[in-house]
Amino acid sequence: MDPTDAQAACFEAGIKFGSLYHQFAGTPVSPASAASLERAIEEAIENQPHAESVTVEVDRERVAEDADPTHGYAEFTGRHATAEVVVDYEGVEVVARMAMEAGYPRMRVASVEE
Amino acid sequence: MDPTDAQAACFEAGIKFGSLYHQFAGTPVSPASAASLERAIEEAIENQPHAESVTVEVDRERVAEDADPTHGYAEFTGRHATAEVVVDYEGVEVVARMAMEAGYPRMRVASVEE
Amino acid sequence: MDPTDAQAACFEAGIKFGSLYHQFAGTPVSPASAASLERAIEEAIENQPHAESVTVEVDRERVAEDADPTHGYAEFTGRHATAEVVVDYEGVEVVARMAMEAGYPRMRVASVEE
Amino acid sequence: MDPTDAQAACFEAGIKFGSLYHQFAGTPVSPASAASLERAIEEAIENQPHAESVTVEVDRERVAEDADPTHGYAEFTGRHATAEVVVDYEGVEVVARMAMEAGYPRMRVASVEE
Repeated sequence: MDPTDAQAACFEAGIKFGSLYHQFAGTPVSPASAASLERAIEEAIENQPHAESVTVEVDRERVAEDADPTHGYAEFTGRHATAEVVVDYEGVEVVARMAMEAGYPRMRVASVEE
Repeated sequence: MDPTDAQAACFEAGIKFGSLYHQFAGTPVSPASAASLERAIEEAIENQPHAESVTVEVDRERVAEDADPTHGYAEFTGRHATAEVVVDYEGVEVVARMAMEAGYPRMRVASVEE
Repeated sequence: MDPTDAQAACFEAGIKFGSLYHQFAGTPVSPASAASLERAIEEAIENQPHAESVTVEVDRERVAEDADPTHGYAEFTGRHATAEVVVDYEGVEVVARMAMEAGYPRMRVASVEE
Repeated sequence: MDPTDAQAACFEAGIKFGSLYHQFAGTPVSPASAASLERAIEEAIENQPHAESVTVEVDRERVAEDADPTHGYAEFTGRHATAEVVVDYEGVEVVARMAMEAGYPRMRVASVEE
């Protein structure tokens, strides 16, 4: 069957998460550069279709823990951030989030409002 | 409201498309290296949760057209490929595709079967 | 033969250019989000070893020209930016630049000072 | 001063390493998909100017150790591979390698032959 608007909205939300994760994974990040990375991810993904808002918080403590002691930076990955994406597609609002669960980053749909 | 299984399945399908696009966009690609890129994208994304199958076809003619004439390669982008992803999530099967529409790559859910 | 310090410094400069290009190629970019992308690239790559400074300028006019007319953004690539990297390795300073030449982005060492 | 051919050759070698690392970091990888990733990286980077050969070996044991136990894959990073790049620029041959040193991946010029 063809997708409903709510299903298409969830597909759009998934695209945003796959994009933000795989575009920016591997970026050199330090506590000092975390703010510019947060902002760039948010503004880049908000460009995508139907993205109402994107919020990224980089965990500076975890970045510091993972940093190469010689050079002071880590490679950005899901361990280092939580993210929330709000999509509005044909009047359906989807909120989805990425956070750590049991030691691994997981992406989930939090709510669908038609 | 919480997502239905079908909505969560569509979210998973979206993740796969965002991932494959943004992980591999920018890869140097020539007609001769197209086959290894297709295979690597398929096998990489099939690792992801709930991915039943991933099929990527790189358009060698378009790659050749876009190639830098001095060096013979282009940078991989959505113009150069079609892709199909099949997700199975809690018994719901979602088929989604990426193809060119009106000059730009578009990702769509093709079908949802519960 | 083993590399000289000046050769190793040039190798380090090359790493920075390959990194900045292939980490950020494909990022959704619009004239409005260009500033946050410039800053994030600069601060990310300045984290890398021996990077004294990184300067990126995104060409907003070219981004606007390349933007998908429906959604208002382009995918970031070498067409959209000039960049300068200064490396200091064991007292050798290397300046390298990326800019368009004959329609394609090229990366060059501009100077080596021992 | 302008770069010598040997310095420019080392710059080119650095570009290849930055490219291969930051293009492919974050790719989902399992022991079963390691071979297609190795091949795709090699053929992609061999497209780049002056690249004579690129050899990548993914460490399947380390990938298996790092894999998410629920889903069986890891995200590709420098921990998971060694790489060798040979550049020929204006008759100068540069061999450069990436390998783990003291727990972190390091890229080095191994030899420069004019």
